[in-house]
Amino acid sequence: MRESGREVNQLRKIEMVTNFTKHAEGSVLITVGDTKVICNASVEERVPPFMRGSGKGWITAEYAMLPRATETRNIRESSKGKVSGRTMEIQRLIGRSLRAVVDLDAIGERTVWIDCDVIQADGGTRTASITGAFVAMVFALGKLVDQGTLKKLPITDYLAAISVGVLPDGTEILDLEYAEDAIAAVDMNVVMTGKGEFVELQGTGEEATFSRQQLMKMLDLAEGGLKEIVEIQKDAISPYVDKLEIK
Amino acid sequence: MRESGREVNQLRKIEMVTNFTKHAEGSVLITVGDTKVICNASVEERVPPFMRGSGKGWITAEYAMLPRATETRNIRESSKGKVSGRTMEIQRLIGRSLRAVVDLDAIGERTVWIDCDVIQADGGTRTASITGAFVAMVFALGKLVDQGTLKKLPITDYLAAISVGVLPDGTEILDLEYAEDAIAAVDMNVVMTGKGEFVELQGTGEEATFSRQQLMKMLDLAEGGLKEIVEIQKDAISPYVDKLEIK
Amino acid sequence: MRESGREVNQLRKIEMVTNFTKHAEGSVLITVGDTKVICNASVEERVPPFMRGSGKGWITAEYAMLPRATETRNIRESSKGKVSGRTMEIQRLIGRSLRAVVDLDAIGERTVWIDCDVIQADGGTRTASITGAFVAMVFALGKLVDQGTLKKLPITDYLAAISVGVLPDGTEILDLEYAEDAIAAVDMNVVMTGKGEFVELQGTGEEATFSRQQLMKMLDLAEGGLKEIVEIQKDAISPYVDKLEIK
Amino acid sequence: MRESGREVNQLRKIEMVTNFTKHAEGSVLITVGDTKVICNASVEERVPPFMRGSGKGWITAEYAMLPRATETRNIRESSKGKVSGRTMEIQRLIGRSLRAVVDLDAIGERTVWIDCDVIQADGGTRTASITGAFVAMVFALGKLVDQGTLKKLPITDYLAAISVGVLPDGTEILDLEYAEDAIAAVDMNVVMTGKGEFVELQGTGEEATFSRQQLMKMLDLAEGGLKEIVEIQKDAISPYVDKLEIK
Amino acid sequence: MRESGREVNQLRKIEMVTNFTKHAEGSVLITVGDTKVICNASVEERVPPFMRGSGKGWITAEYAMLPRATETRNIRESSKGKVSGRTMEIQRLIGRSLRAVVDLDAIGERTVWIDCDVIQADGGTRTASITGAFVAMVFALGKLVDQGTLKKLPITDYLAAISVGVLPDGTEILDLEYAEDAIAAVDMNVVMTGKGEFVELQGTGEEATFSRQQLMKMLDLAEGGLKEIVEIQKDAISPYVDKLEIK
Amino acid sequence: MRESGREVNQLRKIEMVTNFTKHAEGSVLITVGDTKVICNASVEERVPPFMRGSGKGWITAEYAMLPRATETRNIRESSKGKVSGRTMEIQRLIGRSLRAVVDLDAIGERTVWIDCDVIQADGGTRTASITGAFVAMVFALGKLVDQGTLKKLPITDYLAAISVGVLPDGTEILDLEYAEDAIAAVDMNVVMTGKGEFVELQGTGEEATFSRQQLMKMLDLAEGGLKEIVEIQKDAISPYVDKLEIK
Repeated sequence: MRESGREVNQLRKIEMVTNFTKHAEGSVLITVGDTKVICNASVEERVPPFMRGSGKGWITAEYAMLPRATETRNIRESSKGKVSGRTMEIQRLIGRSLRAVVDLDAIGERTVWIDCDVIQADGGTRTASITGAFVAMVFALGKLVDQGTLKKLPITDYLAAISVGVLPDGTEILDLEYAEDAIAAVDMNVVMTGKGEFVELQGTGEEATFSRQQLMKMLDLAEGGLKEIVEIQKDAISPYVDKLEIK
Repeated sequence: MRESGREVNQLRKIEMVTNFTKHAEGSVLITVGDTKVICNASVEERVPPFMRGSGKGWITAEYAMLPRATETRNIRESSKGKVSGRTMEIQRLIGRSLRAVVDLDAIGERTVWIDCDVIQADGGTRTASITGAFVAMVFALGKLVDQGTLKKLPITDYLAAISVGVLPDGTEILDLEYAEDAIAAVDMNVVMTGKGEFVELQGTGEEATFSRQQLMKMLDLAEGGLKEIVEIQKDAISPYVDKLEIK
Repeated sequence: MRESGREVNQLRKIEMVTNFTKHAEGSVLITVGDTKVICNASVEERVPPFMRGSGKGWITAEYAMLPRATETRNIRESSKGKVSGRTMEIQRLIGRSLRAVVDLDAIGERTVWIDCDVIQADGGTRTASITGAFVAMVFALGKLVDQGTLKKLPITDYLAAISVGVLPDGTEILDLEYAEDAIAAVDMNVVMTGKGEFVELQGTGEEATFSRQQLMKMLDLAEGGLKEIVEIQKDAISPYVDKLEIK
Repeated sequence: MRESGREVNQLRKIEMVTNFTKHAEGSVLITVGDTKVICNASVEERVPPFMRGSGKGWITAEYAMLPRATETRNIRESSKGKVSGRTMEIQRLIGRSLRAVVDLDAIGERTVWIDCDVIQADGGTRTASITGAFVAMVFALGKLVDQGTLKKLPITDYLAAISVGVLPDGTEILDLEYAEDAIAAVDMNVVMTGKGEFVELQGTGEEATFSRQQLMKMLDLAEGGLKEIVEIQKDAISPYVDKLEIK
Repeated sequence: MRESGREVNQLRKIEMVTNFTKHAEGSVLITVGDTKVICNASVEERVPPFMRGSGKGWITAEYAMLPRATETRNIRESSKGKVSGRTMEIQRLIGRSLRAVVDLDAIGERTVWIDCDVIQADGGTRTASITGAFVAMVFALGKLVDQGTLKKLPITDYLAAISVGVLPDGTEILDLEYAEDAIAAVDMNVVMTGKGEFVELQGTGEEATFSRQQLMKMLDLAEGGLKEIVEIQKDAISPYVDKLEIK
Repeated sequence: MRESGREVNQLRKIEMVTNFTKHAEGSVLITVGDTKVICNASVEERVPPFMRGSGKGWITAEYAMLPRATETRNIRESSKGKVSGRTMEIQRLIGRSLRAVVDLDAIGERTVWIDCDVIQADGGTRTASITGAFVAMVFALGKLVDQGTLKKLPITDYLAAISVGVLPDGTEILDLEYAEDAIAAVDMNVVMTGKGEFVELQGTGEEATFSRQQLMKMLDLAEGGLKEIVEIQKDAISPYVDKLEIK
C-alpha cells in the first residue's frame, strides 16, 4: 500500500475538460490527481523550413510550467532567456510521440502546434501532457475534417503515456505522484498506442540501476494503466471517435 | 449601445476563483468576460540586491500569455529568448501599482512575486491582472498574518484597474473587449485605490489624439466601474477583509 | 519656489542645435537644462515585415543612454545583451507619439528611424527625446520634400512633451529635474499636439497616489509649458515651417 | 547480413587511446568504427551551488560536435548562442549515467567535468561518449587516489553504452552506424553496468512503434555487445583495474 | 596630393573639448576631421573578480557607435543582443593600450572605465578613441590626486594613436579618412608613447600584402603624426601636465 | 638559451596530418610542439548575404578550444551563450589572412568555411591555426579542381604565421610556447606569404612597450621561421603543389 492509499497498480483520478479555452482549435485541461495541464492544439498553414515542398505535415510541441506550478516558485524561462534542458527533452518527447500515430502525408503542409502548459504540478507532468495532447490534437485535426479541409482523420491509433517506477524498498508502482517520484530509485515513462505497441520507453536510474525482471514488472504495470487511460481518451474525443482511422 | 449589447458604462461579468492552484500562497483565477488570468502570489524570504539591508520588502510582478490565449498563436517568449517590450511594460505596471497600496516597511525583507498568466485573452488583460493580483497578494500576505509572521495586513487600500477608451465615432466607453480595443482611437488604463485616488493613468492615442473633455468623460466612466470592481474584490478577500489596514 | 530657484510653472532653458551630425537626414541636439539628447532621424526605403504591401510608412524609435550620462555609470545594454524594460517603454512611447502627428499613408513604404541618445541626463530625458525627435523628423521628411520624393510634408501638427509632478509637500510642478524627480510623489509625462490635444498621458504614483484635482493642476502646468516649447520648435524647423500640413 | 557486412549482433571495431591530451586528468580518444570522440575528465575542487555543504561530489557532462564532424557542416552552437535540445539531452544522459556507478559521498565536494567532443561522427556518438567517458573518469579519479586525496576509487561498477535498433525490414541489430540509424524504424540506447543492470533505457520509434517482443530481442543484443565492451574498458583502465571498488 | 588636399604626412585638424559632460570624472569630446568621439572616464571603487585581492587597479574600455554615426544607419548592438567582433577588438585594444602607460599598482583596487562613444564617424574612430581616452583618463586619475586619494598621477608616459595606410597606387599616407580607408590596400594602426615606443602595432592587408619597406615608411609617417598629437594632448591636460610621472 | 633548450630562432617541431577527418573537404591536424589544432575546410555552395550577386567567393573562419585544451578547464562558449572577444579576434584574423592569398573572383559564389578547433594548447594556437588552415584550404579548393568545378587552384601564394616576442630580459625569441607567452613583455603575431610579404602584423605590449629596433629583430626572427614553415606546407600539400597559381 502506498502513502496515498493507492494500490501499486492504481492510477490517480484522471479527468479531461475539452474545449477548455476558446481560441485554440483543440483545447483540453487534463487533471491527473493534483497535476493539471492545459493542452492546446493550434493549426498553422505552413511547415518548418526543412519540410517545405515535401507535401507532408508536421506536429511539434512546446511545454512549460507556470512559475508557481510547483511547491517553490521557479524562475520563468522567458526571464532567464533560455529554455532548460529538461523542458527541451520533454517537448521533443511530446512531439515525437504524437508523430508516431499521425499520417503526416495525409495532413498536407500544415503544422499542428501542441502547447502543454502545466498550471499545477504533482508528478507525471510529461505523461499527462502526452495523454492530453493526443486529445487536443484529435479535436484540432477533427475541425479540419469538419470543415472539409481533410477528408478523414489521419490518426492511426490512440496514444497515451504513464510513468512507472521502483520505490526504494524495491516495489514497482504505477503513476508516481511527486512525493514518490522524489524518492524513487527508478523512474520510467512509457508511451504506448491503443494496440499496446511502444512508442517511447525512457527508463532512468538516478544514482541507481534496475534489472531486466524489474523492467518487465514496470512494463506490465504501464500496460495495465494505459489501457484504462485510452478508455478515458475515447470518452473525451467522442465527437470524433467514429472518424478515427485506427488501422 | 455597443456591439456586445453592453451600455457604454457597463462592465463585463467579473468572477474570481480564490485558492485556484494549491502551491501558491495566494492564487486567483480572474475572469472578465472572456478574459481569464491566473494570478499567483508567492512569498520569498529575501529581497532583490538593491534593497538588501534596507529592512523593507518588495513587490514585483511577471506577466505572460499562453501562446494560444489569443486568436492566432503567439511565439512563446522563452523560445524567442527574450521578453517583449509590451510584456515588460505590463509587468512593470502591475508591480508599481501594487506597491502603491502596500506598506513595504511593514512586510520586512521579503519579496511578494506576482505571476499573472493569461490563459484566454479578450482585451483588458493588464487591468484584469492588476485587479486579480491585488486579491492574490492579500491572500499571500494574509497567510503571513495567520502564521504570526506579520502582526497585521500591511495593505493601505484596495486597488483595482480598468480600461476606458474612445470609439472611432467619438463615444467614450468602459471596459473594452478585444474587438473594441482593436478599433479604438484612444485607449486608457486607469489604476485606482478604493478611496478613488489615482495610482496610474496611461492614456494613448495610437495615430490619434484626445481632448481634455474626452479625458474627463473617460475618467468618470473609470471611476464608476472601479467602484463596482472593488465590491467584487471585497467578496473575494472576505477571510481577510476585517484585517485590512485601510487608512 | 523650487531648489533651483525656478517657479512651479517655469521650464528649464531649452535649446536645439539642428544639423548636429552630418550623416543623418535629420539631426538635433536638444538641451533642456542639463539634459542633453542627440536625436537623429534616418530614412530607410522599406517598412517592417508586418506593413509590407500596405502602401503605408512607419515611424519607429530607439532610445539609449551613454553609460556615463548619469551620476553613476550604467552598464551598457549591448554588454548586458538585452534592452531593459525602461528603455523599451521609452522607445515605444517615442515612436507611438510621433506616429500620432504623421500621415503614414502619405510617406509611402518608408521607415523613419528615430535614434535618441542621451549624452547627459538630468531628468526628463524621455520628454526631451520626443520634443527633439519631432524636429529631427521634420528635417528628415523635409529632405524628402526638397528632393521631390514627397509632394508635401505629411505632418499634421506639432508634437512636444514635458513632465509634471507633485513634490512631497503637495506642490505641483512643471519640468522636473533629476533631484526633483527622485523625490516626487507623482510623476507624469504629457505628450501634446500644437493644438493642445493629448497624444499620451502617463501618470504614476510610485508608492503614492494622486487625486483628480491634482491631475487637473498638473495638466494645466503641462499645457502652459508645452505652448512655450512648440514656439521653440517653430524656430528650430524654420526652413520647413511653411511647408507643414497643420490641419 | 548488413550493408557493412557485419552480423546483426556484431559490434564495430572499438579502440581507446588513453592519455590522449596532456592537460586533462583523464583523457581518452574512443573510436567506434568511424565515430571518434575525445572524452576528457577534469576535476574541479568545488560543487555546483545546489550541492554546497552536502559533503557530496558531483559528476556532470558536456557534449559537442566539431562543426564538420558530420557530412554537412553544422553551425557551431557557440555561434548560434544556444545549445540545442539534442545536445542538452545527450549531456544530461551522460552525466546521469556516470553518476549511477560513482559513490558521490566518497569523492567529497568535488566536481568531475566530462567533456565529450565528437571529432568525427558515424552514428552512436552518445553511446561512444558514455563508454569513453567512463574510462576518462576512472583515470581522473584514479589520479586522486594516486595523490592520496582519495583513499580508494569510489566506482561501484563498470559502465558502458550501446545502441540497438530495428531496420525497416524488422531485423533487430546491434551498434547502428549512421546509414542504419538514418533509416531505422526504432532506435534504442542502452546503458548498462558491468553486472548487467540497466542504468538508462531510451527507446524511440520515430513515426513508428515497437512490440514487447522486439524490445526483448533488442535488449538481448545490447547485453551481448555491452559484455564485449566492458572487456575493452578493462584493458583501457588496466592501471586502475585492481583499485576499482566493484561491489 | 590626396583627394582632400592633405599632404601624405598631414594630420586632419584635431580638437579636444575637456569636461564635455558633467557627471564623468574625465570627459573629452575629441574631433579628428569629421570623426567625433565622446571619451568618458569613470572611476569605480572595485576591480573585476580576477584581480580582487591583488592590490592592483584595472583600466578597461568600451566602445560603441551611435547608429547614425555612419552614412548608413547601423543596427544598435543592444537591439541585436550582442557585441560585434569589430567592437570587441576595438575595446580590447583601447584598454590594453592605456594599461601600458599606467602604474596599475599605484592606483589601488580601482577600475577606470573608459567609454568611447562615436557620435560621427569618418575613419580613424579607434585611434581617435585612444587619443581622447588618454586625456579623459588623466582627468579622472587627476581628480583622485586632487582629492588626496592618490599621492601622485600614476601615468608613466603620454599615449596616442594614429592610422597609416597604403593607397592602391602604392602611396603611404597618414591619418586615413573614411574615403581613403575604404579603398586602402593596407591599413595600420599605431599606438605609441610620448617617448616614441610602440604599444600596439596592427597592420592588415585586406586581400593585399605589404613589404618591409612599406612598413618602414608607414612607421615613419606614424611617428611624425604622433609627435604632433602628443603636443595637442599636453594642451588638453594642462591642469595636470606638471603632475605627470613621466619616467 | 631558452628554458626548453631551444635557440632564440628555433621553431618547435611542426607536423601536419592531412585527411585527418573523413567528412571535411580539407582536414589537417597540425602539431606545433604541444599545440594541436584540427583545421577543417568545408565548401558551401553560397556566399553570405552581403556578397550575393557579386560573383565572388568568400573565405571565413571559426576558432574554438576544447574546454580542456588548456591547463585549467574553460567554460564552453556554447554554454556561456556567447563568443568571447579573444575568439572573435582570432577568427577574424584567420579569415582575413587567408583571403589575402585567394583569388576570390576565381572561386565563384562559394564560401570556404575554415574551422580551427584547438584540442591541446601550449601557446601559438592562432598562428598554428593559420598555418594549418592554409593547407586545409588548399585541399578543399583542390578537390574543386579535381572535380572540374574550378579550372585552376585560385591561390596566389603560400601563407603561414608565427609568433615572436620579447622576454622580460629583453631577448627577442621565435615561436613562443605557453610558458614564454605568459611572461613575455611583447607578443607579436606575423602572417606572411611565401614571397615574404606581410599580410598581418599584430604586436602588443601588455603593460609594456617596444622600440623600433626590437621590432626589426622580431621581424627578422619571424621571416626566418616562416621560410621553414612554408617548406613544411609544401610537403603537406604535395598533391596540389604543382597546381598552385603562385604569381
